[in-house]
Amino acid sequence: MKKAIKKRKKRDRKRIGEVPGSIIYVGAEKERPTALTYIHYSASTFSERAVDNWEDVKIVSDETCWIHLDGIHEVQKIKALESKFGIHSLALEDSVNTLQRPKLEEYSGVLHVVLKYWHPPVGGQDEFSLEQVSFFLGKGFVVSLQENNDPLFLPITERLRNGRGIIRSTGADYLLYSLVDVVVDSYFSVVDYFNEEIEEIETRLQDDFSSALLRDMYLLKRNLLYYKKSITPVREVITGLQRSQGGFIEERTRVYLRDVYDHLLEVLDSLDTNREIISLMIDYYLSLVSSKTNEVAKVLTAMTALFAPPTLIAGIYGMNFHHMPELAIPGAYWTVLVIMLFVMIGVWLFIRRRRWL
Amino acid sequence: MKKAIKKRKKRDRKRIGEVPGSIIYVGAEKERPTALTYIHYSASTFSERAVDNWEDVKIVSDETCWIHLDGIHEVQKIKALESKFGIHSLALEDSVNTLQRPKLEEYSGVLHVVLKYWHPPVGGQDEFSLEQVSFFLGKGFVVSLQENNDPLFLPITERLRNGRGIIRSTGADYLLYSLVDVVVDSYFSVVDYFNEEIEEIETRLQDDFSSALLRDMYLLKRNLLYYKKSITPVREVITGLQRSQGGFIEERTRVYLRDVYDHLLEVLDSLDTNREIISLMIDYYLSLVSSKTNEVAKVLTAMTALFAPPTLIAGIYGMNFHHMPELAIPGAYWTVLVIMLFVMIGVWLFIRRRRWL
Amino acid sequence: MKKAIKKRKKRDRKRIGEVPGSIIYVGAEKERPTALTYIHYSASTFSERAVDNWEDVKIVSDETCWIHLDGIHEVQKIKALESKFGIHSLALEDSVNTLQRPKLEEYSGVLHVVLKYWHPPVGGQDEFSLEQVSFFLGKGFVVSLQENNDPLFLPITERLRNGRGIIRSTGADYLLYSLVDVVVDSYFSVVDYFNEEIEEIETRLQDDFSSALLRDMYLLKRNLLYYKKSITPVREVITGLQRSQGGFIEERTRVYLRDVYDHLLEVLDSLDTNREIISLMIDYYLSLVSSKTNEVAKVLTAMTALFAPPTLIAGIYGMNFHHMPELAIPGAYWTVLVIMLFVMIGVWLFIRRRRWL
Amino acid sequence: MKKAIKKRKKRDRKRIGEVPGSIIYVGAEKERPTALTYIHYSASTFSERAVDNWEDVKIVSDETCWIHLDGIHEVQKIKALESKFGIHSLALEDSVNTLQRPKLEEYSGVLHVVLKYWHPPVGGQDEFSLEQVSFFLGKGFVVSLQENNDPLFLPITERLRNGRGIIRSTGADYLLYSLVDVVVDSYFSVVDYFNEEIEEIETRLQDDFSSALLRDMYLLKRNLLYYKKSITPVREVITGLQRSQGGFIEERTRVYLRDVYDHLLEVLDSLDTNREIISLMIDYYLSLVSSKTNEVAKVLTAMTALFAPPTLIAGIYGMNFHHMPELAIPGAYWTVLVIMLFVMIGVWLFIRRRRWL
Amino acid sequence: MKKAIKKRKKRDRKRIGEVPGSIIYVGAEKERPTALTYIHYSASTFSERAVDNWEDVKIVSDETCWIHLDGIHEVQKIKALESKFGIHSLALEDSVNTLQRPKLEEYSGVLHVVLKYWHPPVGGQDEFSLEQVSFFLGKGFVVSLQENNDPLFLPITERLRNGRGIIRSTGADYLLYSLVDVVVDSYFSVVDYFNEEIEEIETRLQDDFSSALLRDMYLLKRNLLYYKKSITPVREVITGLQRSQGGFIEERTRVYLRDVYDHLLEVLDSLDTNREIISLMIDYYLSLVSSKTNEVAKVLTAMTALFAPPTLIAGIYGMNFHHMPELAIPGAYWTVLVIMLFVMIGVWLFIRRRRWL
Repeated sequence: MKKAIKKRKKRDRKRIGEVPGSIIYVGAEKERPTALTYIHYSASTFSERAVDNWEDVKIVSDETCWIHLDGIHEVQKIKALESKFGIHSLALEDSVNTLQRPKLEEYSGVLHVVLKYWHPPVGGQDEFSLEQVSFFLGKGFVVSLQENNDPLFLPITERLRNGRGIIRSTGADYLLYSLVDVVVDSYFSVVDYFNEEIEEIETRLQDDFSSALLRDMYLLKRNLLYYKKSITPVREVITGLQRSQGGFIEERTRVYLRDVYDHLLEVLDSLDTNREIISLMIDYYLSLVSSKTNEVAKVLTAMTALFAPPTLIAGIYGMNFHHMPELAIPGAYWTVLVIMLFVMIGVWLFIRRRRWL
Repeated sequence: MKKAIKKRKKRDRKRIGEVPGSIIYVGAEKERPTALTYIHYSASTFSERAVDNWEDVKIVSDETCWIHLDGIHEVQKIKALESKFGIHSLALEDSVNTLQRPKLEEYSGVLHVVLKYWHPPVGGQDEFSLEQVSFFLGKGFVVSLQENNDPLFLPITERLRNGRGIIRSTGADYLLYSLVDVVVDSYFSVVDYFNEEIEEIETRLQDDFSSALLRDMYLLKRNLLYYKKSITPVREVITGLQRSQGGFIEERTRVYLRDVYDHLLEVLDSLDTNREIISLMIDYYLSLVSSKTNEVAKVLTAMTALFAPPTLIAGIYGMNFHHMPELAIPGAYWTVLVIMLFVMIGVWLFIRRRRWL
Repeated sequence: MKKAIKKRKKRDRKRIGEVPGSIIYVGAEKERPTALTYIHYSASTFSERAVDNWEDVKIVSDETCWIHLDGIHEVQKIKALESKFGIHSLALEDSVNTLQRPKLEEYSGVLHVVLKYWHPPVGGQDEFSLEQVSFFLGKGFVVSLQENNDPLFLPITERLRNGRGIIRSTGADYLLYSLVDVVVDSYFSVVDYFNEEIEEIETRLQDDFSSALLRDMYLLKRNLLYYKKSITPVREVITGLQRSQGGFIEERTRVYLRDVYDHLLEVLDSLDTNREIISLMIDYYLSLVSSKTNEVAKVLTAMTALFAPPTLIAGIYGMNFHHMPELAIPGAYWTVLVIMLFVMIGVWLFIRRRRWL
Repeated sequence: MKKAIKKRKKRDRKRIGEVPGSIIYVGAEKERPTALTYIHYSASTFSERAVDNWEDVKIVSDETCWIHLDGIHEVQKIKALESKFGIHSLALEDSVNTLQRPKLEEYSGVLHVVLKYWHPPVGGQDEFSLEQVSFFLGKGFVVSLQENNDPLFLPITERLRNGRGIIRSTGADYLLYSLVDVVVDSYFSVVDYFNEEIEEIETRLQDDFSSALLRDMYLLKRNLLYYKKSITPVREVITGLQRSQGGFIEERTRVYLRDVYDHLLEVLDSLDTNREIISLMIDYYLSLVSSKTNEVAKVLTAMTALFAPPTLIAGIYGMNFHHMPELAIPGAYWTVLVIMLFVMIGVWLFIRRRRWL
Repeated sequence: MKKAIKKRKKRDRKRIGEVPGSIIYVGAEKERPTALTYIHYSASTFSERAVDNWEDVKIVSDETCWIHLDGIHEVQKIKALESKFGIHSLALEDSVNTLQRPKLEEYSGVLHVVLKYWHPPVGGQDEFSLEQVSFFLGKGFVVSLQENNDPLFLPITERLRNGRGIIRSTGADYLLYSLVDVVVDSYFSVVDYFNEEIEEIETRLQDDFSSALLRDMYLLKRNLLYYKKSITPVREVITGLQRSQGGFIEERTRVYLRDVYDHLLEVLDSLDTNREIISLMIDYYLSLVSSKTNEVAKVLTAMTALFAPPTLIAGIYGMNFHHMPELAIPGAYWTVLVIMLFVMIGVWLFIRRRRWL
């Protein structure tokens, strides 16, 4: 089986005894700098700009402001969020720690959402990679932090630019909803992947009984287990968003969050069904193997039962005793051959009655 | 194993980044137009008419109005519901998306119910197909949308025409109940189907141990799994209807909904029992196979133990050494035969004591 | 496996599209008429009478009235309950439908209880049959409907006649309790039956490894599954009775209902324990089989390993080559025999070290 | 498997139709009379006395009174409790019925506790026996009923005599706590027993693969199941005591009850862990067996593959055809021997590559 | 399997009948004396001192006081806590009893926390050892008791000395949080250990099918079970701390406790995933074994089927009958050899069609 749980290790060593709230990046080192995109818009205005440092960013009243950070390895850039937007250092610590479980937390005046998504396999790889994304929703602004530079949120930027839908005429909560919606919708590609894999295995199961098939089924089951585990806590996050008090989410947006929740349930349902199907297929494979072993054992028993008696008879008349009266009897040879035949026919009938051949 | 999960795939590609509330039909393309039936009635009046466009439809006060759409692929016809009845676009999106889970949602002033039912197998097929139906209950009206043109709701139309029962003298909520009742009652035919299949397998289990039986048992189990999964969320829908606030459901109708709930529990109970029975039958089959392998292995061991020793003896006296004194002894041949016989009898008794034959 | 789930089928066909509240008997046709017993009593009075039609029945104030219907196939007699006692038609529909799950429901002013009990096997049968009984508790009266004519409630009638216990000096709620108590106590005979069966199988498990034992264990497990399923919903019924509001149950009677609940828990506990025990016994049987297959395979391997080498040696010296110098050596025969013996002893020691024999 | 569920049976026959509240002893008949011990004490006073009849017993105000009944088979002595202490007849029925589940119930003014404890195996037996003990807590008194004459409560009597701890200066609720504490502490000896058994089996698992070990593991698992089941309801009893309203339990005593609850959780946790460990050990045993069967099958296959080809060759040259030119070739014999050897070496190498030997 | 559950036993014997609240140390006897460290600090002051007896310890108002006891075997030193800080004797009993489950309890004015942590394996051992640590949080002070002298809390002492972070400017509740945080963070090393073990087994699973691998997988599963069980109750402890009323925990500290809770969930999630992965690997191993047995059985059957028929033919022509006409036919020998070859080829083709070789 392949390795899929290595990531966890390095982290822990760093932690014991550390001052809580220390912002430490634990992912792979990355060379590109952390890119900052600063967007602010209202129903009638829209401005988008790549900025270099935080001084250029300010929250404009009457407008919704979206700051997107692409890359979370430049820790000092993230630390600035504490003073700029009053975000609690524990929340920043969790955003930067790429081993964080999905969660929703409220720190004074800011809602903090951590989500995971599955980056589709690129190049020769055949596994999805797990990436982290986190959001801060405050009064009039959303800050989003993304581990790698997937163009995941491009459709949202496009909608903002074109002013399609109601996104420009609604507030920061609808923007947060749109971002979360994109993340949850990306889970459907994982479901697609598993549906295809299962179909392929169903096809192979028709006539392939190699242990390679067995291995692939177990790998698929293990992957399903990992994927399910990483997505499951998202349910609580979205339920939390729906029920959140404190004026973060407007009534109008809750209807949309209910919709996201619905999609998530669909994803989890599908993964669940897939897990049960793959278990069923493994069971079926093993049942077939055990049923085939039984069949083979029956053939073996039949062969042995069929050939052992005449071979003994032949052995007896192959002995070299001087006085073996039968040997001289004319026709004895044919008689013995006929006896052998009868013995074999008798055993054969017995075998047929016992349904071994 | 057959393929039963293909449908899901096409859908997802369309979604990521789409504006929420886009009404996109994802089922198979259908040629027939979407048929609109417009019924309105009171205790004393009844009118039924096929209409072509929405202008002909209007809600009559003091009457209950039922608009039935047969076919949901003509998206523009469904869009009209938004302006006509004030139905939220997200709800319409879900009604048209045939991959939706069963659910109950309330949008301002309109109750939205999505259900699934199983279309009995037609022609040479041997699987039920899953069809979607959805209802909108508003003040004085019910709108129903049906994916394919099954005459599922014909009994209701009949009752309305004849004025049988209390259906004409009650409101739109009772109509909704009646429609939901028909859908839930249709689940009993799935239960029937499984009961028959299980009985057939029980009969075959008496003397058939082919791997075809094994395959059929696993297929049945898988189908049970799918059917159960698709029906289970209906329970929440009906509980939700029973408890719904906001004046949608009158007190009198709740008693009837309790009855529907009861029927649904019966269906789920039966499917559950069937699932446990089929699992038990698979276990029984496998136990039998393993028990038979053991029996066959015992016969094989007995055969080998019985024939190996005399065959060795025969081989020994078949050797061609010049000086083998026994060969010349008169009666040696008979003695050896008797020894062989004794060896075989001894082994036989040993085998009987070990209960191998 | 025997058939135990046939009953369900006929019913469903009748239902789809039926007007709700239609009273349709779905059990086996019965020849005897529905018998009506009319009892009314107070602390000092008691009257019992078989009546033919409903006119003879009336509720006497200051007395408790018990109407018992033996047989539910004469639908028109049951319909009369609607007008006579104001019982909702849906409740009557459920009472007559012998496929109903146990349940407790309140319809305006009347409490409706549906229970199941197991009729002990009669004659040559070896399965309990499932019978339905239902009660209506109203102000001052209890109506009981029983599917077949078991003398199940005879002890209650006896107690009423003799005035034993507190039954005559309490109201209709205590009568309902007494009837429910009798039904729940009858479940103990099912528990007895399973205890006996399990003990029998425990005894057979000592030395019987036939597949008949396997079959009996699976049948027992399946039956336990059915019995448990049919009784489980009764728990909710009794909890519901204990907590029922609306003045149906007096405070004094609740103590007794708690006692019934206790008995039911005991029955369910026992069935649960039995289910786990039978599963354990099946597991034990299968473990034994697999352990025995291993033992037999070891003997087989030992036999083959022991006899194959000397048989080859004998075969070699049985060849007819003209120039086989060993054949002429005096004592060669004995040497070869000794070598054979040594080979066999060597193999034997090897086998002993590997613990195969 | 041994019998451990017989007790239940006799009881049920007696019950159906019985007047509720009938006090019937269902345990084994016992010869010794029911012994009554009457203790009353306060911080400064203590009196203990064996009494013969109830007239000698009276509740002294300002003192706590403890009446202990050793033996519950003399039903008339127990009946007296109804009039003397106002205890409900249903409660007395449950105390005397030794098949009662552990439970806590409140009857007007009296708290009724039924517990089970495991009598350690005596003499040659190797199973714990299940004994019942029940308590009544009223204003200023505790009545305890014990099935057999174990000196279970001796430490409590000792503490009362010596005035050790706070027991004499607290009320009847602390006495009840002390008695319950003793019962729960006695469960630790069952845990000890299982810990020892599991350790023994762990040791045997090193080199014993007999079916006796298998049998012992299953027996242990079954016993764990029974013991766990009989103790589990005690948790509810103690939670109930902790939360009981109505002035039975003083605030100070609740801290102590929390402690008992803690001990019980520890016992249940241990039994649970033991159950999982024994299941794991059975799985391990079966895995080993199946792994060994595979090993043996590989050796068998190797033996057959190794010896079948040379045996056939020897057979061929043992044929008696007149014209077999090879037979006359000088050195043919040696050539054939070498060929045989090469065949065996070839097969051997093939086997090694397939890892069968 | 190794022994890991011995510890429990000794304890129980001591308990039955003991006065509740007796402080009895049940761990291994230790030689070193119990060391007392007395720390008190405020934002601006810090004092740390090893003290010998309790007289030197006093709570300073306006400062937070931390008393750390290293070693809990000197019972009299612990008893002093009762009078000094008003800690309930039952709480002290639990702190000293090293077999206690993790728990949180409130005794008048003092919060009592018992936790477990895993001491990393030292020297040649390969198992973590389970150590107990308990805390008392009162007004202005924390008392911590530690079973062995691990430098577990050194980082906290360091932070206090240096005044890093906010620890000196916050109260006793933040100190408690810091101590609990250190304990929970130490669980990550257990997770690391299991991750490494699982990776090693994954590597071995590629080509090792010895029963040693099987044994190691079962041992790992058992250890996971123990570790999970010992940590699980900690969740309730931390939830309890978060929700605790009575002014023990300030609002500001709750955010940090939420963070600890989050870490704990991560640990439990990882252990859970590991448990499922190891189960999956065991299943995979067993499936492979059963699949290999089937393969070997097929080869065995093929060998037997291939060689039995020609061996019989050779045996027949090795018989010594005087009248065997075929023997004299010229070319008969070659004919028979060809027949043998054809039989073997026929069987071979049959075998290939059945996919046995």
